Amino acid sequence: MLVFWDAAELGHSPHFFLQRGMLRRHLETPDRAAALLAACRAMGLAVAAPQPADPVALARVHTPAYLAFLREAWGAWSALDDRGAEMVPNVHPGAEILAGCAVPPAGIIGRLGWYTADTACPITAGTWPAALAAAATALAAADEVARGRVAFALARPPGHHAFPARAGGHCYLNNAALAAERLRDRGAGRVAVLDIDAHHGNGTQDVFWMRGDVFFASVHGDPDHYYPWFIGRRGERGAGPGEGATLNLPLPLGADDAAWLAALAQALAAIRAFGPDALVLSLGFDPSRSEPLAFLAVSDEGFARAGAAIGRLRLPTAIVQEGGYNIESMGRLLSLFLDAFLAAAAAS
Amino acid sequence: MLVFWDAAELGHSPHFFLQRGMLRRHLETPDRAAALLAACRAMGLAVAAPQPADPVALARVHTPAYLAFLREAWGAWSALDDRGAEMVPNVHPGAEILAGCAVPPAGIIGRLGWYTADTACPITAGTWPAALAAAATALAAADEVARGRVAFALARPPGHHAFPARAGGHCYLNNAALAAERLRDRGAGRVAVLDIDAHHGNGTQDVFWMRGDVFFASVHGDPDHYYPWFIGRRGERGAGPGEGATLNLPLPLGADDAAWLAALAQALAAIRAFGPDALVLSLGFDPSRSEPLAFLAVSDEGFARAGAAIGRLRLPTAIVQEGGYNIESMGRLLSLFLDAFLAAAAAS
Repeated sequence: MLVFWDAAELGHSPHFFLQRGMLRRHLETPDRAAALLAACRAMGLAVAAPQPADPVALARVHTPAYLAFLREAWGAWSALDDRGAEMVPNVHPGAEILAGCAVPPAGIIGRLGWYTADTACPITAGTWPAALAAAATALAAADEVARGRVAFALARPPGHHAFPARAGGHCYLNNAALAAERLRDRGAGRVAVLDIDAHHGNGTQDVFWMRGDVFFASVHGDPDHYYPWFIGRRGERGAGPGEGATLNLPLPLGADDAAWLAALAQALAAIRAFGPDALVLSLGFDPSRSEPLAFLAVSDEGFARAGAAIGRLRLPTAIVQEGGYNIESMGRLLSLFLDAFLAAAAAS
Repeated sequence: MLVFWDAAELGHSPHFFLQRGMLRRHLETPDRAAALLAACRAMGLAVAAPQPADPVALARVHTPAYLAFLREAWGAWSALDDRGAEMVPNVHPGAEILAGCAVPPAGIIGRLGWYTADTACPITAGTWPAALAAAATALAAADEVARGRVAFALARPPGHHAFPARAGGHCYLNNAALAAERLRDRGAGRVAVLDIDAHHGNGTQDVFWMRGDVFFASVHGDPDHYYPWFIGRRGERGAGPGEGATLNLPLPLGADDAAWLAALAQALAAIRAFGPDALVLSLGFDPSRSEPLAFLAVSDEGFARAGAAIGRLRLPTAIVQEGGYNIESMGRLLSLFLDAFLAAAAAS
């Protein structure tokens, strides 16, 4: 199994993080990627650099205006006389703007709010190169998977909270959605995206909401009490041609291995019923009970059992890294997960 | 002319203010109200306490769910184990939620984001009582105006950025909209709202967007480069029965007396053409060149000339305080404005 990784992912290192009315340490740090890379190397996995992200592939998921914003944001910000060290939005367009004929404002401060969903996606000088690098790993992994293999995209920043035209929750480009679209372009007739990050993959759901060819299933903390708050409820099932191709399995605070693995089994049964040609796995370690902002309470063994259960699908699989913020444990969890996944996938 | 004022307005004193990626001093402070009150007393104006705000009147502008949120917010926040000194939202629902069947989340953190438009409306223990008191001054002023008089609502926190179901930009209850609705209820067939705060009155526009009986005119800094960023462009003219009953006159950075007064004259001509029975004036002092975050460059004399021009409408007028953040100058500007307004209104 190839691991895709690009050192430019380390160039994004924001500090601003507002939570419950307090400024806290930003948890989505470069040492997350370093810890996962070390674990991959300790497992003896081959690590390869991806090709640069194809702009045409990016445009399959994101709007041209949003991509232009991300590309130009730091330069425009740097031209302001009076500015902070990071671009942090403080106002976002609500549903009310739909009453008018609103278009993005011309100035960079307004555009920053327009193209972001929350304050948890600051933009720095290294953000766009890092987001491009992370997207490139996901696209490279998808190319491997299109050849019938399994691959791991060591993607950072993560992607599943990024919408077609909006960053959010540490995410800028939706790596998993990009991988799924790439698989479709490479000949997979049907693709499933399984998201086991503790937070609902609201961006990914939005990308595929109306699509019948890409199934989206997510096991996550109940958004009534956990980020991303507004999306990810059980009743959200897709629309139009995508009706029934979205499956949300929210879990209550403190859900343990039994609850988490039961929801996962339900998601896997639905994916089997959908009959995909390939799988994209949005893998987060934040369901772990060892997480700094733990909402779920999954054990180390739970991650191994999840890896085995997903491996038993025996699908060409692009594993795309999402969240997980405990630097001490995430390398171990990755090894446990991948070992079990690969063993189950290889079993005859 | 009666001035309405309630000391509970002083109980709201948030500190969090994020601007251009920096934490700064919050400018919407209780001493703003104290400075204006001192100016009113120095002018010899009678100051009266309003009746408590009528819940039925509040529900003419705001949704029951939003009013319940404001009423209950601090109690729910105080029950959290781990929280900051002020409620500051860090995530807001974007247009994407409309793709799902989104309803407000159950938890207070998610509801905080749901019911706010930006980070500039922190909620503290004293916020709801202060917002109620400010609304009460506007309703009391409207009652005076319904009797054919002129009144000044010394309202704080301000109101014109508050939507029917969303706080924003230092505003929680839309005092000017409440006054306009009260005037309609008290028999005014047609009401005009004129907003000369430097920031577009996005909340007020939204309240009356579809209404043909309330004309909304605003003279403000160009939202392409100034808060509230997303609404307030010239092309926004209302919709349905309200088409043509919204007039936006955005001005460029640094616009001086000549430009500002010309736009004001255009707004006044439109109001005359509309033929209202009463006027609500959203009065901000932030167009002043002496403002800490100045975008426009209006002189002291400009405010006197504006007062005279508006007074010449000779309409029963509820003057409702909005923004203005220079403590040193705002009392003087209020006196200059009111003196000229009252003289012009009284002239035969």
